[in-house]
Amino acid sequence: MLSVDEARRRLIEAATPPSGRRHVPVSQALNLVLAGDVFSEVDVPPANNSAMDGYAFCHGDARRAGFDLPVSQRIAAGHSPSPLAAGSAARIFTGGEIPEGADTVAMQEDCRLLADGARVQIDPGVSEGANIRPRGQDIGSGERILAVGTRLRPQELGLLSSVGIARVAVYRPLRVAIFSTGDELVEPGKPLKPGQIYNSNRATLTGIVTALGMEALDLGNVPDTARATEKVLFKAAAEADVVVSSGGVSVGEEDHVKASVAKLGKVDFWKTAIKPGKPLAFGSVGGKPFLGLPGNPASVFVVGLILVRPFLLAQQGARFREPTPRWVPALFDRRGGKREEYLRARLTEKGAELFPNQSSGVLSSACWGDGLVMQPPDTPVRAGEQVMFYSYGDLLS
Amino acid sequence: MLSVDEARRRLIEAATPPSGRRHVPVSQALNLVLAGDVFSEVDVPPANNSAMDGYAFCHGDARRAGFDLPVSQRIAAGHSPSPLAAGSAARIFTGGEIPEGADTVAMQEDCRLLADGARVQIDPGVSEGANIRPRGQDIGSGERILAVGTRLRPQELGLLSSVGIARVAVYRPLRVAIFSTGDELVEPGKPLKPGQIYNSNRATLTGIVTALGMEALDLGNVPDTARATEKVLFKAAAEADVVVSSGGVSVGEEDHVKASVAKLGKVDFWKTAIKPGKPLAFGSVGGKPFLGLPGNPASVFVVGLILVRPFLLAQQGARFREPTPRWVPALFDRRGGKREEYLRARLTEKGAELFPNQSSGVLSSACWGDGLVMQPPDTPVRAGEQVMFYSYGDLLS
Repeated sequence: MLSVDEARRRLIEAATPPSGRRHVPVSQALNLVLAGDVFSEVDVPPANNSAMDGYAFCHGDARRAGFDLPVSQRIAAGHSPSPLAAGSAARIFTGGEIPEGADTVAMQEDCRLLADGARVQIDPGVSEGANIRPRGQDIGSGERILAVGTRLRPQELGLLSSVGIARVAVYRPLRVAIFSTGDELVEPGKPLKPGQIYNSNRATLTGIVTALGMEALDLGNVPDTARATEKVLFKAAAEADVVVSSGGVSVGEEDHVKASVAKLGKVDFWKTAIKPGKPLAFGSVGGKPFLGLPGNPASVFVVGLILVRPFLLAQQGARFREPTPRWVPALFDRRGGKREEYLRARLTEKGAELFPNQSSGVLSSACWGDGLVMQPPDTPVRAGEQVMFYSYGDLLS
Repeated sequence: MLSVDEARRRLIEAATPPSGRRHVPVSQALNLVLAGDVFSEVDVPPANNSAMDGYAFCHGDARRAGFDLPVSQRIAAGHSPSPLAAGSAARIFTGGEIPEGADTVAMQEDCRLLADGARVQIDPGVSEGANIRPRGQDIGSGERILAVGTRLRPQELGLLSSVGIARVAVYRPLRVAIFSTGDELVEPGKPLKPGQIYNSNRATLTGIVTALGMEALDLGNVPDTARATEKVLFKAAAEADVVVSSGGVSVGEEDHVKASVAKLGKVDFWKTAIKPGKPLAFGSVGGKPFLGLPGNPASVFVVGLILVRPFLLAQQGARFREPTPRWVPALFDRRGGKREEYLRARLTEKGAELFPNQSSGVLSSACWGDGLVMQPPDTPVRAGEQVMFYSYGDLLS
């Protein structure tokens, strides 16, 4: 069996760089991935400016005048100042540009107005150069502000805007074709006949793909026949960048996915040491990467977060780090198994507690909590011991 | 000054329940909030079924026959079985419905086929009742599966689908009007004149609102005049559910937001003990909640995550918990301040390290890392001590 780390490493290595790129407005770029480095063409701040509301002055002039100066102009943010008259002070507001000739700002709490505001008495303790944000302090013109492969979060959108960038080159979001195989599967909203069950895996996978900023192409449920399976694989490879299926990769005789993918492309079957979710098919169809997941809903959820997500991010050209686990006390006892097990858990102030029925295939366990506890192979856990917890917030971002 | 907890509590208490609701397909419901409890109308699984590929049989019959049984039928998933002929076994696959008369499944690894598959020899160690998933084991008909106020993640979409639900009632996503005030602000993509800077706060806020599954209504930059401020407030209150502004809430003379909101509605000014981001205006305009943030980009980012997010989620009708902090070793020394400080940080295997320049207003600090370290008031930190870390993944989900 492949370890989870090894399976993930192989998947990431097999990812190919994305080709398509497009220019989008920054306001529509959330969760997309930069297709090139981004450089600033401006200094931030663009000129020396005031960090405070107060008075701008020349410290040397002020010393000579006993820190009692006439007020010669008023500089609001967004308005260009005149050079400062020698021996005077300028009323200034936060963000206002420092006038030529001034080198210090006294904040207004350190000033006293005299003669109806015509003069200002400044606290002599204000040090030379105080409260000035120098031009280019934060970002210099020509500086690289974001690297190719960056996934854009709200703060990156803000940073791009702050240097005046309105549009960015991003990789075209991956289109991920999703289908499920199984004669027993029925679409939600339709009545169940005996022997049938509702399909939930496409909804789970669509949610994961969408949360990653990619586009899900739902190709429905596919009957357990070679003909139907080949047809959907052909369509998926033609219309999408990546193909993900659920069901049809176990050893059962009714599984046509293996043969169909092998016929139209190539496929490896991996036994990964992950629970839930042992069997994983990985290959390609029509030149497009193919991932075949098991049919069990909990397996699809866990494998989706632990193996499919990193592959999709790599294929999307994103530079990313796997989430770092959080060490928390276990509020449970548990024997270890042969595989790395991902337990549906909830974090409380005391530690991580488990959904009582971890063997269930339904997703109640995943909805109940806020993350996964990873129990390594052959490692029993006793209450109070530290275990690794991954939050869904981190696993889905 | 208000503590951060107290400010958050007041904001959440002031939130009003959402009124509008709509029915949406489950496939389009990611990040939306349930407007009512959801009950299952089916049993999951819908009938006793097999957890394995193998043979279904009656354990009592098998004991009498020395665990050597004729194979009388073949049951694939999705097909309805006939009652089991007495004293026989049925070939069955994972998910296949257990035929009437059978009470046990032997997995195929525990079976040996005889007479070209006409008979099967079963390991006598297979215990009675093994490998059967009973009807309704996971979810019973009539059971509440999700509560009103649940924000829908990929796993909730899967759970809804698994009980056959194709559409759900959700609260209409909040429309959040966003504007910035300041004569110095210029739209990205346009050239800068002296004294001007690019606006980044609307991009940051739009990103946060969008990540929460809500709709951002961008009303642009507004000049520092009472007339322009009143005009944008009137439009925002007419077209949106919540109004968020940046800039214009400090004590500077050029700030017209305070007077304009007071004229058109009501407003409180809070000094919150948060750094960055001390001044916060909260009130209402035209019956719509109003939040006025400072103009500094780092303040907008931090206040957006720590105070605006919980308010918006509450106003959206979501039941949510604040992210639980992760305790990690500090890789820095730092004096404490009078306010709760949110430091832009990066998590490594060794602990949390800080972006070198925490005083900078630009968002480079937030883009550099993956979360915030919270330093409580009057609490110096020495390297190696445990500090509280909140990941952006958790703060944005």
